[in-house]
Amino acid sequence: MTASTVLLLADLLGVAVFAASGASAAVAKRLDLFGVVFVGFVAALGGGILRDLVIDKTPPLAFADWRYAATAAVASAAVFWLHPQLARLRPTVLVLDAAGLALFTVTGTRAALAAGVPALGACLVGMLTGIGGGLGRDLLTGEIPVVLRREIYAVASLGGAVAVVVLDWTGLANPGLLVTAALVVFALRLVALRRRWSAPVAPGAAPPR
Amino acid sequence: MTASTVLLLADLLGVAVFAASGASAAVAKRLDLFGVVFVGFVAALGGGILRDLVIDKTPPLAFADWRYAATAAVASAAVFWLHPQLARLRPTVLVLDAAGLALFTVTGTRAALAAGVPALGACLVGMLTGIGGGLGRDLLTGEIPVVLRREIYAVASLGGAVAVVVLDWTGLANPGLLVTAALVVFALRLVALRRRWSAPVAPGAAPPR
Amino acid sequence: MTASTVLLLADLLGVAVFAASGASAAVAKRLDLFGVVFVGFVAALGGGILRDLVIDKTPPLAFADWRYAATAAVASAAVFWLHPQLARLRPTVLVLDAAGLALFTVTGTRAALAAGVPALGACLVGMLTGIGGGLGRDLLTGEIPVVLRREIYAVASLGGAVAVVVLDWTGLANPGLLVTAALVVFALRLVALRRRWSAPVAPGAAPPR
Repeated sequence: MTASTVLLLADLLGVAVFAASGASAAVAKRLDLFGVVFVGFVAALGGGILRDLVIDKTPPLAFADWRYAATAAVASAAVFWLHPQLARLRPTVLVLDAAGLALFTVTGTRAALAAGVPALGACLVGMLTGIGGGLGRDLLTGEIPVVLRREIYAVASLGGAVAVVVLDWTGLANPGLLVTAALVVFALRLVALRRRWSAPVAPGAAPPR
Repeated sequence: MTASTVLLLADLLGVAVFAASGASAAVAKRLDLFGVVFVGFVAALGGGILRDLVIDKTPPLAFADWRYAATAAVASAAVFWLHPQLARLRPTVLVLDAAGLALFTVTGTRAALAAGVPALGACLVGMLTGIGGGLGRDLLTGEIPVVLRREIYAVASLGGAVAVVVLDWTGLANPGLLVTAALVVFALRLVALRRRWSAPVAPGAAPPR
Repeated sequence: MTASTVLLLADLLGVAVFAASGASAAVAKRLDLFGVVFVGFVAALGGGILRDLVIDKTPPLAFADWRYAATAAVASAAVFWLHPQLARLRPTVLVLDAAGLALFTVTGTRAALAAGVPALGACLVGMLTGIGGGLGRDLLTGEIPVVLRREIYAVASLGGAVAVVVLDWTGLANPGLLVTAALVVFALRLVALRRRWSAPVAPGAAPPR
């Protein structure tokens, strides 16, 4: 497999898991089939569309390559029809979301570097790709955006993006190390969720109600 | 009239009805004149700006052609000054919204095809053009986005977009049939509203509260 | 200093004050360090990213020039660590927001004119640059967008944008007059806040609850 095939497969995997995360959130809100697919689309393709607009790759892959929309639709519909019990969906959403965050951060940072965006900008584009879909999903379903919640989220993505830029700089950006970077983001996010790791709050701020 | 003149007039008509839908929603929320015009602008021009960013037509028509902004401003101000009774606005918003949905879906799909976006992508761009303005209007006025509500909405738009792509494929995309496609979307949305047609809910999901 | 240096410094000043406004709002909502920096980023860079997408300057300055992101991060972190009392933040947010509105309106309108956007479109792009960051900040922190509130806001920005376009037309767009235009927007917004100036409400609309 060439590097671009690996990137495509990783991207489609990210689309599938983010679509599933969006669809799970929409099913939990009792939206109908099309609402579920729509939220799945936004969660799956929103981050990548933002990325492609920023690096001026138009039309964005989500519109130019039918495999993206088809993957998002199939994954969303699969969650709609096959999810076993609604009560168990919330943990699933969080794990799928962490996987999508990890995959999209790495592929988004790579795409930005390939498009000639400088190092710091590429980190931000990678983070934006990673968190964009989840942000859209949360705004649509009326949840407080996960990125603003206490546990480490955007910072896991940013850390992964910095790792990818450093690997690229040092010429070590081979598939194995990139997958490792994604796994580190994924693990960091899951551990942060389980241990309720969070960043400090401003000095003098009362605890949230 | 040439095809491009027809497209321009249809587009401006869509701008006017979506501006009126946004302005009506804003008047119902008791916003002031500039809030009303702002929500009217977002509703009228939001979908088209998204479309133009996606197909890389920059600056978007809403900024490049003064007739778009002027139409949106005049329609919004007209609703502000002339609306007869506030209590009757909600049904009006829904009918204007259906008309804008139909017009923008057809013109958005046509624009995407003309810009070389492939078939499935053009359907999505058409749907995005149709639903984008209403989505922005609902987010700004704090309503649950109409696209996520029970009655058929995005699917009416998607159906219209598919029809336009099929007409284009078969070489039948003449103005008469395109107008017919728009009327079918409009009628489908109105009937869905009246009959409360909705898509299925996920198996096992309790009814919404 | 050349004109472009002045534009850069004004832009970075706008980034700093809008980042501080976003960070102040996030601290008031008791978000953690990364939530504060994230909201600061959106407030500081959101308007400019929108502007650059619209005028097709890609990647947007916020990603292409590290000084933008660095300024936003430093300003946000400074607010996080140094803000003296939470109770006094809200007035500070409003004053910083007015300064950012004024600066971004003028630099955004100039950038749009330089990119060849026609007069009316340039006014809208300038207003969008001015209000975009605050809109994103308010959506993220769950506030009613300041642009939709009673006091003169978007209209101050639009007035400043029109002034810049007129100065450009008449060949008088020298730094001194552009700074004057920004100061007029700033003063107009502050006076509107203090005097509770507001635009008219639609005839027949009851007062807001």
